Amino acid sequence: MSKKLTKRSDDYSKWYNELVNKADLAENSAVRGCMVIKPYGYAIWEKMQAELDKKFKETGHQNAYFPLFVPKSLFEAEEKNAEGFAKECAVVTHYRLKNNPDQPGKLMVDPEAKLEEELVVRPTSEAIIWSTYKNWIQSYRDLPIKINQWANVVRWEMRTRLFLRTTEFLWQEGHTAHASRQEALDETLLINDIYANFAQNFMAIPVIKGVKSESERFAGAEETYCIEALMQDGKALQAGTSHFLGQNFAKAFDVKYATREGGLEHVWASSWGVSTRLMGALIMTHSDDSGLVLPPNLAPIQVVIVPIYKGEEQLAEIAKVAHEIKEQLQELGVSVKFDDRDNVKPGFKFNDYELKGVPLRIAIGPKDLEKNQVELARRDTLSKSFVPKDKLAQMIPNLLNEIQEVLFNKAEKFRDEHITEADNFDAFKEILNSKGGFVSAHWDGTSETEDQIKKATKATIRCIPYISELENGSCVFSGKPSAQRVLFAKAY
Amino acid sequence: MSKKLTKRSDDYSKWYNELVNKADLAENSAVRGCMVIKPYGYAIWEKMQAELDKKFKETGHQNAYFPLFVPKSLFEAEEKNAEGFAKECAVVTHYRLKNNPDQPGKLMVDPEAKLEEELVVRPTSEAIIWSTYKNWIQSYRDLPIKINQWANVVRWEMRTRLFLRTTEFLWQEGHTAHASRQEALDETLLINDIYANFAQNFMAIPVIKGVKSESERFAGAEETYCIEALMQDGKALQAGTSHFLGQNFAKAFDVKYATREGGLEHVWASSWGVSTRLMGALIMTHSDDSGLVLPPNLAPIQVVIVPIYKGEEQLAEIAKVAHEIKEQLQELGVSVKFDDRDNVKPGFKFNDYELKGVPLRIAIGPKDLEKNQVELARRDTLSKSFVPKDKLAQMIPNLLNEIQEVLFNKAEKFRDEHITEADNFDAFKEILNSKGGFVSAHWDGTSETEDQIKKATKATIRCIPYISELENGSCVFSGKPSAQRVLFAKAY
Repeated sequence: MSKKLTKRSDDYSKWYNELVNKADLAENSAVRGCMVIKPYGYAIWEKMQAELDKKFKETGHQNAYFPLFVPKSLFEAEEKNAEGFAKECAVVTHYRLKNNPDQPGKLMVDPEAKLEEELVVRPTSEAIIWSTYKNWIQSYRDLPIKINQWANVVRWEMRTRLFLRTTEFLWQEGHTAHASRQEALDETLLINDIYANFAQNFMAIPVIKGVKSESERFAGAEETYCIEALMQDGKALQAGTSHFLGQNFAKAFDVKYATREGGLEHVWASSWGVSTRLMGALIMTHSDDSGLVLPPNLAPIQVVIVPIYKGEEQLAEIAKVAHEIKEQLQELGVSVKFDDRDNVKPGFKFNDYELKGVPLRIAIGPKDLEKNQVELARRDTLSKSFVPKDKLAQMIPNLLNEIQEVLFNKAEKFRDEHITEADNFDAFKEILNSKGGFVSAHWDGTSETEDQIKKATKATIRCIPYISELENGSCVFSGKPSAQRVLFAKAY
Repeated sequence: MSKKLTKRSDDYSKWYNELVNKADLAENSAVRGCMVIKPYGYAIWEKMQAELDKKFKETGHQNAYFPLFVPKSLFEAEEKNAEGFAKECAVVTHYRLKNNPDQPGKLMVDPEAKLEEELVVRPTSEAIIWSTYKNWIQSYRDLPIKINQWANVVRWEMRTRLFLRTTEFLWQEGHTAHASRQEALDETLLINDIYANFAQNFMAIPVIKGVKSESERFAGAEETYCIEALMQDGKALQAGTSHFLGQNFAKAFDVKYATREGGLEHVWASSWGVSTRLMGALIMTHSDDSGLVLPPNLAPIQVVIVPIYKGEEQLAEIAKVAHEIKEQLQELGVSVKFDDRDNVKPGFKFNDYELKGVPLRIAIGPKDLEKNQVELARRDTLSKSFVPKDKLAQMIPNLLNEIQEVLFNKAEKFRDEHITEADNFDAFKEILNSKGGFVSAHWDGTSETEDQIKKATKATIRCIPYISELENGSCVFSGKPSAQRVLFAKAY
């Protein structure tokens, strides 16, 4: 804990890994590619969950739970989806272990307990859910179905990084069924808006809403909408996706409904998700060389009070004031911790709460008691000031709101400064090599061009933004005509 | 939906299965032994989660998340635990599927993607968690660790029943680490008390707190404490367990801490859990031949308003009053649904909400409007009365509390009437065959006797109650001396 973090400018990736560990967010487990989300990290995830869950419910969605396993025959039903995930599936083949006769005390897979049909650990739940919806949907009266589930999923990733890419991760996945193309599309877009508002207003992460190019589309979707964020190192991060599935899964699982007019039609669908990857986005949007910086909305501890004292008598006097302040603030809905541990020095505590991104720190020493003041430190600016004790209750809720806003504005400014137009491929490459960020460029709309650009620069099309003004131009790579700029970037 | 439930007296087990399906709680999935928890059932589970989560946090526990998979070598480290679960483990052996060359469009397990070490899908998480705690614990200052996780677990059950015994189920599992035997034991008992209070005060399910006999103990525990409930068919149901693990896992994973005095000791542990099985307990404690009966604390809809009308004009007038009532009640924290569907008759709705256990139903017809009254029906007693509209806001919150209490008292009376003392084995068998329930009998303390009683009667020792008065007697089976009665029953 005492050792400083690597600086971002020295090694961004190392800084990230150290921060995740030292701020007690998560760590690698004994299982390849799977992480342990530690209590402090999980408390942040719980705040995201609570807010999103509220938004989903307010818009008419209900939670449910579907099985962890997908029988292989269901998994392969929607061909594109199966193809997209087949290469990264954990597969259950047996249902029993037995004692290993050659190694006493050790176990082995019991060959007699081989499953007739293998089970895939869900990488995503469209298959199992649509095989269920088939039984729930007969008529237009059964529609829409708007269900979300909070679950773990498994995708066998070869190269993993805490939160950003792990073999198992936690997420929510929404799966909706509709009587019309338009309704399913409206749902897809509604959710992308919910994601964008959540990222911006709750996590203070500016995002760009857009649609994915074909090669970045979800396997099995007709169209994938997304929110894209920009990290401090100039790389983009896909923060959430909402898929318009058309009738693909309804056709694969033969899900039809009797229309109001007496016909029989395949059902229309959407699916959408955000995951613990958002923790990575959070970290890499706001944090600095001193550690995590948390928007107050997401901070498990919004204010920490640290006593500066010598001897028990001083501590008792400070504690009295600290508890007063704590109670006052808690009544206002602020979460406060009074850290009176006696086995570590104040300086250690200061560092620790900086690492952990606690938005405000109050320090109280004997002189402060005399002067009826406290020292108030902001995590975002690392600035300190003395504040009359009696003003805290009035000041702190406003200050927390201000910090939330300042963090968003700062990140937005950074993001906006890192959207650069390129009108030829040399400029395009130069931008990626020097400042990074999003490159706004014309593209001829073909996967071939996208692929060649990727090979040459490692940049991919992050999204075709919603609100990009139509502007005739020529593709930055092929020179062919284009009607809209799209955003390229190297990405997590 | 229109068909009536099988009566409990005709076929209790069929009644249960039908109720779970017709009340939209859960259904079997395409995956053997795994269930789909439907939105209405999941909403009840969410209420349980929220309440338990609050209790855990109030008592200093934090949530975290550990991997779904346990490498075989970790799984087998604590021998008794491994032995206890080895026979019901789902095992991941491969991490990839590939196209089946013999069957175009089909997939097969890729033999080249065989894992070097198999992964067990967690049946419980002691092994993976203690392999993690090893890195977290060096000194007494790192203790206690009090962590809970909400997760899915998998136990390959041969005979499954919705909620009661499923291959995959949802639960919470607490895992704590302590510096002393006494502290770990105190934690174990604290949690058993939390479970008991939750069952009784929140779910209106009377439970008996006790300790398990050796043969019913959790694999790897030194002592298993439990809460036992009694279902309407006279069978017992284990509703929650809290295990004192001693130093078993600390020894298996070599987890030691430096004591305050400078020594080095193995850490002491507890683990504890309740699961979606509680849904089964809920159903079988309160429900009747008309369907689910929900204690108001757990009801996703506490009050439903059904309009009785002809034509749109009448509906509009009734709707106005219904919305008024709804708003009034919602302000008081009551959850209310106004069901103005026009494609089903009021009678259908009445049946449906009875099936779903909605505690109170308000019906409003044109005559009620004239008289400024509504018809109020209680789900628990199936009684109806007319109530002045203006009294509803005052009446309903109290009535919901009353129903909560009535349900508990009714269940407690039933339970108490079904604890019968037996002083010889003929009486013992006779009680089990006739009235069922708990048989309170002396037992000589040996597993042999317990086993023989089980073979003869299918009854097991559900628990050795905490507060059983010591009473010298002789074992109901062997005649050997005994100092305390224990509770036997057939059990789920």
